[in-house]
Formats: sequence, C-alpha cells, structure tokens
Amino acid sequence: MPMPSSSRRIPYPGAIRINVQGAFIVDDEPSRPPSSIGLRTADINGNGKNTHNRDIVLPHHTADVSHIAVDIGGSLAKLVYFTRDDDSMGGRLNFTMFETENIEDLFAFMSKLISAKRQSISDGSAETEAATTEKKKVYIMATGGGAYKFYDRMRKELDVEIWREDEMECLIVGLDFFITEIPTEVFTYSEQNPMSFVEAKPDIYPYLLVNIGSGVSMIMVSGPRQFKRIGGSSLGGGTLWGLLSLLTGAKSFDEMLDMAAKGDNTNVDMLVGDIYGSDYGRIGLKSSTIASSFGKVFKKRLESGDGVQISDQTGNSVDLYGARHEGEDAVNIAPPARFRAEDISRSLLYAVSNNIGQIAYLQAQRYNLEHIYFGGSFIRGHPQTMNTLSYAIKFWSNGDKKAYFLRHEGYLGAVGAFLKRQPTGWGRRNSMEEKR
Amino acid sequence: MPMPSSSRRIPYPGAIRINVQGAFIVDDEPSRPPSSIGLRTADINGNGKNTHNRDIVLPHHTADVSHIAVDIGGSLAKLVYFTRDDDSMGGRLNFTMFETENIEDLFAFMSKLISAKRQSISDGSAETEAATTEKKKVYIMATGGGAYKFYDRMRKELDVEIWREDEMECLIVGLDFFITEIPTEVFTYSEQNPMSFVEAKPDIYPYLLVNIGSGVSMIMVSGPRQFKRIGGSSLGGGTLWGLLSLLTGAKSFDEMLDMAAKGDNTNVDMLVGDIYGSDYGRIGLKSSTIASSFGKVFKKRLESGDGVQISDQTGNSVDLYGARHEGEDAVNIAPPARFRAEDISRSLLYAVSNNIGQIAYLQAQRYNLEHIYFGGSFIRGHPQTMNTLSYAIKFWSNGDKKAYFLRHEGYLGAVGAFLKRQPTGWGRRNSMEEKR
Repeated sequence: MPMPSSSRRIPYPGAIRINVQGAFIVDDEPSRPPSSIGLRTADINGNGKNTHNRDIVLPHHTADVSHIAVDIGGSLAKLVYFTRDDDSMGGRLNFTMFETENIEDLFAFMSKLISAKRQSISDGSAETEAATTEKKKVYIMATGGGAYKFYDRMRKELDVEIWREDEMECLIVGLDFFITEIPTEVFTYSEQNPMSFVEAKPDIYPYLLVNIGSGVSMIMVSGPRQFKRIGGSSLGGGTLWGLLSLLTGAKSFDEMLDMAAKGDNTNVDMLVGDIYGSDYGRIGLKSSTIASSFGKVFKKRLESGDGVQISDQTGNSVDLYGARHEGEDAVNIAPPARFRAEDISRSLLYAVSNNIGQIAYLQAQRYNLEHIYFGGSFIRGHPQTMNTLSYAIKFWSNGDKKAYFLRHEGYLGAVGAFLKRQPTGWGRRNSMEEKR
Repeated sequence: MPMPSSSRRIPYPGAIRINVQGAFIVDDEPSRPPSSIGLRTADINGNGKNTHNRDIVLPHHTADVSHIAVDIGGSLAKLVYFTRDDDSMGGRLNFTMFETENIEDLFAFMSKLISAKRQSISDGSAETEAATTEKKKVYIMATGGGAYKFYDRMRKELDVEIWREDEMECLIVGLDFFITEIPTEVFTYSEQNPMSFVEAKPDIYPYLLVNIGSGVSMIMVSGPRQFKRIGGSSLGGGTLWGLLSLLTGAKSFDEMLDMAAKGDNTNVDMLVGDIYGSDYGRIGLKSSTIASSFGKVFKKRLESGDGVQISDQTGNSVDLYGARHEGEDAVNIAPPARFRAEDISRSLLYAVSNNIGQIAYLQAQRYNLEHIYFGGSFIRGHPQTMNTLSYAIKFWSNGDKKAYFLRHEGYLGAVGAFLKRQPTGWGRRNSMEEKR
C-alpha cells in the first residue's frame, strides 16, 4: 500500500511508513559486498552515503525518516539510515558498518547524521516553536549488546533519545522484512549457480535463523515475532578472525577471505585418505573427507624439529619461533615445517563453517525446520563460506533441508531495529503484522 | 567362569580365553594417565611392560596369549598385549602408545614382542615339528586406518599374519568389555568428585560413544555389536594439537594440557558480559558465558598495530611477526597485544571440548540416548577436558543426560581388536555374547 507523499519533511517524527514499492538493491559489486571490516568514516562520502554497501533504493518513499538504527555487536557495529536522493523523487536505505573497537568513529558519524537530520526537519518549516522542537527530535534505535554497554555514553555524547530493542527480536524482524519485502535479496548458493534468487512467499514459517557474528546464535522462528533462541556456538566469526590474525598476520577479514580463496586445506587437514590410504567405505567416509582439521600440523612440526614457518602473503616466510626471513633466506632453516597462510586460512574457514552447518542441521532436524537462513557479518557473500554451509546442510540432511543466504546478511538486527520504529501493517506485500 | 589353567604355554594359538576374575587396574598415577604423546620404546622396560599405562592385572589368567593388538589412528598407534608376571601366577594386559608418525618405533617394538611370544610358545614343548610350527604362529589384530594404510608394510617387515578388524566395531567391543568386565574403569566427573566410579550393570544399551582422537566419531550402540556411526566432527584432538603447536610452540600434548591448566581464557575469549556489559537475561545468557572463542584477539591486535606477542612458558616473549625477545627486551615493542600461551591453550581446549559436548548432546537427544561415553586419546584423564565435556552435556540436556569417562579411554579400539581374537562367551559377568 503506497503512501501518499507530497512532502519531504517528516510529518510525524518516528511514525513514518516506509514505502517499499519498487524497491531495489544497488548492486555495485555482485560477487561480494565489500563492506570492509576496516571501513572508516572516511570511506563514506559527505552525504553519509556509501554506495558500496548495497543500499536499497526506495524510489517511491519521499518523506524523510527521523531515526537511525544501530546494532552494536561484539566486533562490528552496523548502521542503517534513510537519506533522500537529490536527483530523484525517492531515497534510499543506507547500510554501513564500523568496528566496535572504533566506537568513537561510529559516534562521530552518528553525530553528523543526527545534525543533518535535525537540519532537514527544520528546513522550510513555518510552524510553532513547540512543534518545531518536537520535530527536531531524532531517535536512535539501538540493539545488540552495545546498546546496553554504550547506552549512557551514547545518550551523553549524542544528546538524543535512544530506544533499545531486543537483539533477537530485531534479527527476526529484519529477516522477515528482507524475505517478504525486498526482491533479489534471498538466494540459495551452489557452485553452478552462485546466486539463485528465491521469490518472496507468503508462508515463511517456521524457519531457523543462524546468525553468525563474533559468536553464533540459532533462533527458531515459528511466526511473526514468535521466536526462541534454541542454541548457539562460541565458534564463530570472532574465532576465525582472532586465530587467523594470530597465525597469518592478516589485518582485515577480507584479507583473510582472499587468502582462503587461494589456499589448499589438504596441506594442513588430515583427510580420511591420509589415515586409511583409501575410503573408509563401510561407514561411507570418502577418502577426501576431512577427518581432522589441522590434523597434519602437529605431525609436520614434529618432523621438522622446532622450526615452524608460515609464509605470509608476500611470499616472505614468517618463522613463528625465530626471526622473519626475507625471500630466499627462508630456506636456511632446515627442515622447516612450512605452512602457507593461505592453506591455514582455508582450513580454518572450512572448519568453522562446517561446524556451524552441522550444528544448524542438528537443530533444524530437532525442531523439524526445513528452511535455514544464514545471517550475520561472518558470511560477507564469500563463495567458499556459503558453499561450505550449503554443502554441510545438504550433506547432513540428505538434501531434505536448504540453506538460504541474504545480500544484507550483516544487517538483519540493524534493519529490524530500524523497522521497530514503524507502525505495524506497512509493506509492499501483505506483511506479517497485517495477518494477526 | 574361571578357566582351568595349569600351563603357561599356549594351548591353542589364537583361541585362548581371557580369565578376568579378580582383574584390577594398576594405578600408579591416579590423577592422569601419563601415557605421553612422545612415548618411545625406550620408556618401556625390557619385558615390554610399561607400568605407567594403567595395565590391567589378571591374577587368574595364567595361559599365554599368542596375539597382540594394535589400533593405528591418524596421530597415535595404540598397542595392547598380554604378558605373564614372573612373580605371580597370573599376568597382565599392557597398554602403550606410539606416535603414528614414528611408525618405525612401533614396528621395532612389535617385532620384539613377536620374537618374545614365539620364544615363549616354543619353550618346553616336546611335540611334533608341525605342531610346534603351528604354535609359533603369532597374530596381529589390527584396526584403525593404519591397519589398511600400513598393511603391506606390516606383513613384510614383521612376517606375521595380520587380521584386520573394523575400527568402529572394535571401539564398541572394547567399550563393552571395559563397561561390563573391568571394575573401577568407568566414572563420572565433577569438580567435587573427580572420579566417581560407576558399577558395571547388566543392561548397558542403548548408549552413545563419542570417540575423540585426531577427529571425532559418534557411534550409537543399540546392542552387542549393533551400532551405527551417526556423526562426527573434524574438530578434535588433531585440531587442538595442531593449532596449539603453532601458537604456543608446545611440543607435546601433555605440555599443552599443563599450560591450559594454568591459563585464563577470559583474556582471549569474548564473554557475553564483554558485549552486553552484563547478562543477556531475556534469553538466559549469563555474563560469564563465552560468546566468541578467541573473540578478543582480533580486537586487541588492531589496538596494538602489527605487534603480536605470545609469551611462551619460560616467560620469554614470542613476537609472531618479529624476532624472539628475551625477558625484559620484550617491552620494547609497544603497545604489544600480548597473549599468554596458557590463556590460548585454555581457550582452545574449552572451545574444542564444548563443541564436541554440544554436538554429542544433540546427537544423543536425536536418538534418545541417555548415556554418553567419551573415549579416545584426546581426553587423557585431563580434569578440565572432562569438566568441560560433563558441563556441556549437563547444560544442554538440563541434567537429563550423563557423561561417562574411562581410565583406558584411548584404548577402546585396541582392546576391541584384542578381544576379537577371543571365542565368544568368556567373561567374569555374563557378557553380551552369551545372551544371544
């Protein structure tokens, strides 16, 4: 149901309806959302727009929005806000993220946004002072652990009203929105068809949401805002990022993923074939099945004595218990147990993804859930990650269950918080709230 | 049913009955089986006895046994064989292990054992030459992947007949033996009562066996020799050993466990409290719950610039991307992200154990199995490992399911292979074969 919208001013702060008619995703880089873990305010242009983050254009939404939403997790803070497009009638939803570690950058950016929003509310208004003051109110919808941890600081430094929303609820509100309202958002992955979009369907329940951030939460969703956190895992993105930063010297998650793409895990993983010399046919384990992640490392270390080397991306050799060696000098240490940073990255990416896939399958099996949606900043549209998760679900369920991915996978909570400031019942399709 | 046994010679090679009446475990070191990952032939005395490995004394078994059993896994090869005690009537089952990497040591040791057994068979015999030749036959019962991988080599180098037995079947035959025949073998673990022995009971089925070696196998056992491998994980002992050898420079698994015992995982793990500043009460997550294993590492690395240091056990500082610094020199690198090898060890031990515990619970839940036995060389009687596994089972099942441990946890497969050379129906209690 499109909204009549003649004015760009905010008609009533905090109670705007978003017009999603004709919404589409700005698709600058189809293969991977490049939202870097190292993204800084400087990457974002003066309007607060960052076109590299798959903004959602809302061509028919012309009214401004008086709130911004933030989901502050353990590693990343995700921000969603609306801006008007100067060159067209509508506007867009902007998506951007900061490292939680650089919380000052996030606050500085939000402060800029708030000023701009206050300015836009005042513009051209000829109403009473009281009404203007009311309209100048900009809200922050905050979720994630940081909404609690940084609550006092945020209030004080940004001088705004903050509404805190439950993290799990925001995740599923956000996911429901993406599933039902945004075209070409949800897809399945296979090597043959890396992005096979799924048509929005009226009956989406029940489903399992597996949200992979620093850690992993698994949430069973049985109806609109009916959900239960049924499990989780501490082996998530934080584990991969932490261990790989120690082992490879990589400084960003994208760097780690680039390395993983070039690696060969069989140099560090112990396969069934390494133990059996062949398949273990009787129980259906193929020779190529990973029996033990990193299972070859200890062995190779023993062979080599003390020298452990990991070659970094430049081809130089990093000796974990000695000095750094440039180029050819590296061969002086003999016999070295050489592990390529790329191989290590791939092995750990496989290990973490496989493990999440298996636990997700077991939870889905337990609660009889056929559809498994993977969200969170761990995935980042990375083909191998999605391939591993998809494969794990397919393998364990004998093809009974399916893995779904989203192009805004990292923003479920932030979008959910953004939408919580909406009146119920809006939407392009008959969204869930109306069915109640 | 005790066997009449007047002679120490082997009455019929390969068809001996083991007399387990009065069997007991030699308990040299109650707190941890010190069977080192670095154990070499030299550690074992001239008779092939190794009293540090919790041998099982069989005071009423006097006949010799013409076979030895070996379970060759991805990282460790486990050996079980019988020797007579010179100072008493009976004998004992000996347990020892080698690194699979040092397969030559294993072969040399087996060769010695075989010669000794052949000698004992010949001793005092005054029969026909044909009978003597027959009796000189010594068999190797082999299981594990190495039974296939090293089959040809073993036959050639040891010049013996090798019987290969299925790995999973051996595991459950071995476990059944320990559960039903050996007193003070099976126990539950809690911090208050680290070793609460479980009385052998007639009805042990169904149960789940979680065998943790380099990788993890989960086997549902529904009756004597009725079993199915229902799952597994590549995140097992090999993963812990491999990653910790890279990250801490530790050279043996016992060294890693010693470090883990002294570590504080909260220096590297991200807790719920680190994200929320408090509990996440609504979904029942305590402030102290680990949200992300190693979740603090990447963050701290960013803070510190490039310098990553791991202090090794001697207190010296290992700079992963620079040179080794002795003592005080380490502070020259500022500001360093310092991670203690002890903290890293504890975090990874928690992560791997917790993960196995959770998957084990989900599998047990799925198949309605109340008793979960943990076997394999990963555990090594280490209190924190058992505590974590026990806690995970208790936590996830709300106390419905129970974790059981064994003092010979690493030898299930080897003992199973050893017993497969037995006629059915022997045993102190009415063991399963007789019930058929």
